[in-house]
Amino acid sequence: MRQYKVRLRKMERIDDLMTHQLKIIQSDEVFSFSLDAVLLARFCTVPLRGKIMDLCTGNGVIPLLLTTRTKAIIHAIEIQERLADMAERSVIMNELQEQIHIIRGDLRQTHETFGHGYFDLVTVNPPYLPVINGVQNTNEHFAAARHEVHCNLEEVIAACAKLVRAGGKVAMVHRPARLVDIMTLMRQYRLEPKRIRFVHPRVDEEANMVLIEALKDGKPEVRMLPPVIAFKNKNEYSDELMQIFYGKE
Amino acid sequence: MRQYKVRLRKMERIDDLMTHQLKIIQSDEVFSFSLDAVLLARFCTVPLRGKIMDLCTGNGVIPLLLTTRTKAIIHAIEIQERLADMAERSVIMNELQEQIHIIRGDLRQTHETFGHGYFDLVTVNPPYLPVINGVQNTNEHFAAARHEVHCNLEEVIAACAKLVRAGGKVAMVHRPARLVDIMTLMRQYRLEPKRIRFVHPRVDEEANMVLIEALKDGKPEVRMLPPVIAFKNKNEYSDELMQIFYGKE
Repeated sequence: MRQYKVRLRKMERIDDLMTHQLKIIQSDEVFSFSLDAVLLARFCTVPLRGKIMDLCTGNGVIPLLLTTRTKAIIHAIEIQERLADMAERSVIMNELQEQIHIIRGDLRQTHETFGHGYFDLVTVNPPYLPVINGVQNTNEHFAAARHEVHCNLEEVIAACAKLVRAGGKVAMVHRPARLVDIMTLMRQYRLEPKRIRFVHPRVDEEANMVLIEALKDGKPEVRMLPPVIAFKNKNEYSDELMQIFYGKE
Repeated sequence: MRQYKVRLRKMERIDDLMTHQLKIIQSDEVFSFSLDAVLLARFCTVPLRGKIMDLCTGNGVIPLLLTTRTKAIIHAIEIQERLADMAERSVIMNELQEQIHIIRGDLRQTHETFGHGYFDLVTVNPPYLPVINGVQNTNEHFAAARHEVHCNLEEVIAACAKLVRAGGKVAMVHRPARLVDIMTLMRQYRLEPKRIRFVHPRVDEEANMVLIEALKDGKPEVRMLPPVIAFKNKNEYSDELMQIFYGKE
């Protein structure tokens, strides 16, 4: 049995990331990663080397998954101390401290640390829900992960635009309902959407997720990739999802 | 045998619209309708009564198909004399003169005839291709149907926005590559996209068509409907398309 060098806090557990023997610390009381992050980590076009930034990293699932696809240095920002700490311990547990740097910080100030245009790729799985009439969720960790408590969509897109270099890429996962907002804001911040995939639970159901990759200072013209169909039967994952979960590239 | 009251011009033929015994005049030298128009006529939300405008109507395929779904009065604009004449004769051939009014005219001036906000629904299958370094197609009819010779995307969307009433709908079919342009322009003209469907030739191929329905003065939030998959095998239409071609609602 391998001895992990990290300690688990109350209610935390270690989950298997299924691919490449990666492990991750999760907690039902604080944060667990979702399919959205897994799909984004696979969807984005990664530079083989260079510099990547993951915003709203949560427990660090996207940086961990990206290490299976690239040797680039990955910085990852999380505003919640509790989650940044979980992410940091997962990095140590996987002995990836040389490739992944977890930072507790605010994405609105991150460009002050790194300078404008420092990154080749910025990934982000932001909170999806606007704050309307206060947030329903009384758990502060869930509230911040799901609602735009610490940053709204425009602030997220503005941060991406500042951090990525000209010709670099920004990859985002979000709810389809916000698509028009995302596209108009991206264009406003000179991030031109170039590749889009919608995720439908089943082929005859509405999409519940959208993956978007934009090019900083790109020309207008977008490709609409084949849909991701999540399930092939009632609760059986489709072949593509099984490949994403367990397969190699 | 039924005697049609219209004369065919050189190289014209009468095609079967497959549904409800409708017939349409087509010509390989001038204009034949495509799948795009058929899908748009089925996709749009029609008022049962009221007033509909079809812009860029070509040989009038969309108004003809809409008569199977609504009793609304349908006006249809076509800038090319030759095509407006074909459309007019198809209307007569189907004895639909009381429901469909074909107008030869320019969509940029149409609001001057009807006034702002006259229509409950505006449909449009505009030319898809920008005019870049001149138009390659030497046939003027094809050139105008495919390239933005007589109007560009912004002019089309501006015309839709002027013609439709507040709370009325605009339904458009276009190429997915222009999606970001369409969305930013629609929002700029207070047409909020509310329902979108992408058409993929096969489930594992990129979309080659997008159907968009916008609400004049609607609130931001869009539904991404299940994809239309055109073919189930190599060249066999999917069940949904067969239903659209031959079925009733």
